Amino acid sequence: MEAGVLFSGGKDSALAAIMLARDYGVELNTCVFDPDREVPEVRAAAAALDLPFRKRVLGRDLLEEAVDLLLTCGYPNDAIDMVHRTAIEILSREYAVVGDGTRREDRVPRIERSEVQHLEMTTGCSYVRPLLGYGKPEVERLAGRLLVVRYGETGVIGNGDYEGEIRDALRARGIDPALLFPPHHLQSLVVARKNT
Amino acid sequence: MEAGVLFSGGKDSALAAIMLARDYGVELNTCVFDPDREVPEVRAAAAALDLPFRKRVLGRDLLEEAVDLLLTCGYPNDAIDMVHRTAIEILSREYAVVGDGTRREDRVPRIERSEVQHLEMTTGCSYVRPLLGYGKPEVERLAGRLLVVRYGETGVIGNGDYEGEIRDALRARGIDPALLFPPHHLQSLVVARKNT
Repeated sequence: MEAGVLFSGGKDSALAAIMLARDYGVELNTCVFDPDREVPEVRAAAAALDLPFRKRVLGRDLLEEAVDLLLTCGYPNDAIDMVHRTAIEILSREYAVVGDGTRREDRVPRIERSEVQHLEMTTGCSYVRPLLGYGKPEVERLAGRLLVVRYGETGVIGNGDYEGEIRDALRARGIDPALLFPPHHLQSLVVARKNT
Repeated sequence: MEAGVLFSGGKDSALAAIMLARDYGVELNTCVFDPDREVPEVRAAAAALDLPFRKRVLGRDLLEEAVDLLLTCGYPNDAIDMVHRTAIEILSREYAVVGDGTRREDRVPRIERSEVQHLEMTTGCSYVRPLLGYGKPEVERLAGRLLVVRYGETGVIGNGDYEGEIRDALRARGIDPALLFPPHHLQSLVVARKNT
């Protein structure tokens, strides 16, 4: 059974992919808005996991929609959720199983139970979150055992989450993203897999 | 790292144990109220998984407390939750990690987020639920790939969930358990592990 995993190159989605790859044939999928955007560090992270990699294009229209929503809300949660939901829907057209790295404490992006049921009913796919039953200490413990991870602030580290392009799009509209995103959000990037 | 897994001998807790055993040293723990109660079919299920097995005694006082709560509520949910919470707390005294087979759709037993945080803070252990991010179709699919399972109604099948003894205790008080438990609740018992 093939599973498409939403992959940012970060610790959580990498760990989720490793766990799913024990039971499924996993392909890693990284979503970008701009078709020209390259994600060499995410490709390298996928290669380190020895799993096939696909770049998916969400399109610039969705980026502008996300920025509009962010500006309406005044904070990024709903915009990130909307983008993540769209990414899952796109993968659900191609895979019977779609997975991501949502942890127990994650608030954003997070698909609520009723939305999950709606998604699975309308698409016929299964949406799985192997880390949902794990708290932060266990995720850190497992990641530490299985992965070599580099950490840095958003914008400094080259991972493939949605935030980087949203920040760029805000700047293109003359808006300082620091006013809308919480400060000091540490990102992770997988650089190697440990031999266990 | 040692993980104590709450094990009924059924499909879900067996699958959770297999998944956890990929990252932790797993011991299976089956909780009974009556110290004299033997659980040969659950022991056999544990042997089929090739994982160490411990029988834990919750005590007859807790059984009576659970029956009182059930009769107060008129349905078993709160009583089963209370027993399950006690079982997790008992294991948390002995293991740094405590796990169970809770699935995404499970309503009972289910420990809510605030209770999980309280439990982890007060005991210092991690409570993990490897199946929490999986819906029923994926659990069935994985169980079908990894396990040979026998199904039957509660009371017919010899698994180690809390319900059997609670039903017996109701009968001992002259109460028909069929009036308090939902009908046609299918139980599962693992009889072998498939070679994959």
